Amino acid sequence: MSRNYNLALIGFGNVNRALTEVIHYDGAALAEKLGFTLTVTAITDLRFGAVVDGQGVDLGAALSLAPGQTFASLPGGMETCDNQAIICNGPADIVMEATFTNPEDGEPGLSHVRWALESGKSVCTTNKGPAAFAARELEELAAMNGVRFEFEGAVMSGTPVLRLASGPLKGVGITGFSGILNGTSNYVLTQMESGLSLEAAITEAQDLGYAEADPTADIGGSDVRLKVTVLAKELLGADLDAADVVTEGITGITPGMIAEATAKGAHWKLIGQAEMGADGKVNASVAPQMLDSTHPLAAISGATNAVMFETEFLGRVTISGPGAGRQETAFALLSDIVAIDAFYRTTGS
Amino acid sequence: MSRNYNLALIGFGNVNRALTEVIHYDGAALAEKLGFTLTVTAITDLRFGAVVDGQGVDLGAALSLAPGQTFASLPGGMETCDNQAIICNGPADIVMEATFTNPEDGEPGLSHVRWALESGKSVCTTNKGPAAFAARELEELAAMNGVRFEFEGAVMSGTPVLRLASGPLKGVGITGFSGILNGTSNYVLTQMESGLSLEAAITEAQDLGYAEADPTADIGGSDVRLKVTVLAKELLGADLDAADVVTEGITGITPGMIAEATAKGAHWKLIGQAEMGADGKVNASVAPQMLDSTHPLAAISGATNAVMFETEFLGRVTISGPGAGRQETAFALLSDIVAIDAFYRTTGS
Repeated sequence: MSRNYNLALIGFGNVNRALTEVIHYDGAALAEKLGFTLTVTAITDLRFGAVVDGQGVDLGAALSLAPGQTFASLPGGMETCDNQAIICNGPADIVMEATFTNPEDGEPGLSHVRWALESGKSVCTTNKGPAAFAARELEELAAMNGVRFEFEGAVMSGTPVLRLASGPLKGVGITGFSGILNGTSNYVLTQMESGLSLEAAITEAQDLGYAEADPTADIGGSDVRLKVTVLAKELLGADLDAADVVTEGITGITPGMIAEATAKGAHWKLIGQAEMGADGKVNASVAPQMLDSTHPLAAISGATNAVMFETEFLGRVTISGPGAGRQETAFALLSDIVAIDAFYRTTGS
Repeated sequence: MSRNYNLALIGFGNVNRALTEVIHYDGAALAEKLGFTLTVTAITDLRFGAVVDGQGVDLGAALSLAPGQTFASLPGGMETCDNQAIICNGPADIVMEATFTNPEDGEPGLSHVRWALESGKSVCTTNKGPAAFAARELEELAAMNGVRFEFEGAVMSGTPVLRLASGPLKGVGITGFSGILNGTSNYVLTQMESGLSLEAAITEAQDLGYAEADPTADIGGSDVRLKVTVLAKELLGADLDAADVVTEGITGITPGMIAEATAKGAHWKLIGQAEMGADGKVNASVAPQMLDSTHPLAAISGATNAVMFETEFLGRVTISGPGAGRQETAFALLSDIVAIDAFYRTTGS
């Protein structure tokens, strides 16, 4: 019999919608490539309510809800959205968590992930909250329940930074990293080099859909802070909280500072970084830095993200790629599902 | 009982010597990290002869041969070096092939790899010859014999380009790549931007140990041609030979061309690239290109190497890191051994 995984999608914004489109429109090709099929058996969303159907939700209908409609119009649909009940008792093998992130406590995603793992369901998420606040606890909870907690997309969307470190770079001795981890602020800094003011550049980023209506998390550094926390835990085994990451955004960068850098061939970048000291303690920070043109991150422009690893064996290794985007994020989720499939095959599940 | 792999080192130049130093000086720490021990049971070299000892060659003695000495002074040592007999009949589990590369036919490495795989031994190599000339044949030969042919270090030394593509980027849909794959030529181009002539920059690269006494393969593009051939086969599944890669080196780059590029903020780079056409056919080439400062490879300076993947899901993803070096190459070999260990554990060997 062919292998299939039932998915529960928690949150039906851009991320899970992009995944749904791939499954709905390219399902057959995807199944051939992956070696298993994917069936969406539940979707929940604060705006749309919920739909649960063990035989498979009607994805075409879910994707084409008119404004103001809810899942109640679908078979198995309802106006309300009881995430805990659906995550714990619904028919899913894997829970795809893609709600918003409260930067103070990682909720509501953190609870969603806990409920799923405690119910013996694996989790894929692009939400940085759960990993930033409780990566170790959640990984242990997953191990205890024989399932996986995967979150490749939480740091750089589809660009595989976590799996590069844990796979091909395993054993290389990562002692620190520096990254450009927020596409909006990097786009703003790049546009300021073309003469825009900070405010005008932010407005342009909003018009292009890069920046949120409230760009505080992007510009103020709190988005990067959570990503640095995730990377410090996963790459350096650091025992630190987001509050330990000294954070400064780019609001203090003036056109005069940009001009001064340009005159030297240098670039201002919002850098999230962490390094392990000789005592094994990890220091992490987020702050604007003026990088000389020879620095591996100096030329990372626009909405691109990048991480430079400092390593014992190889010195500096840098990966760059998209840090956002619908299709890119869908790839991150699919790569998480592939990792879960590999785990189940190894464990004979 | 604890797991151990016996290694036969074919060629005792920089590469296998660096590996030997790691095993000799850091063997205990390495074993703890890897979960298995490594015993060198044979070494062969055109200059030093051969030594075979099923209980483990005296690595301290092998590393400290005085000029003019041969392995004949060691237990199990001999003046001559019969690679075929030692590869086929020696006590090794894994053959570490690190001889020189004849750019015309990939020999003698190609024969060494064939003999090893046919004898049921896995192979790790940093030699680009065997993979460039016969990757598919050798992979099939390995599969038929229940062993592995690993060559991560053949393209970018320790920087994991092949395993990034086959692991974390699996399924991303790679449609092409562009790379800076020769550190010597990139160093020469970087130094020409500082005002050196081509000849002076080559001499400097030779003094620093980057360039060979005969820099033809580096400067003329034939080194990159073999690496492009390997990448085109592995990343794009291309059916092509090195002779199909239209190749031009950097000898035609003049100080005037460099100055013209610098005035525009652009950089000349020796780019090896391949792309899959709409008909599925792969076109590959090596040639100097003038890259605009926003190109992901424009800022890769000095002896650093980089590959930019063009992908369906993620657009452009770029990895950069060292493309040479003793320790870096030793890491590549160790990562190959780790991959072989994982394979044996999966297959129950």
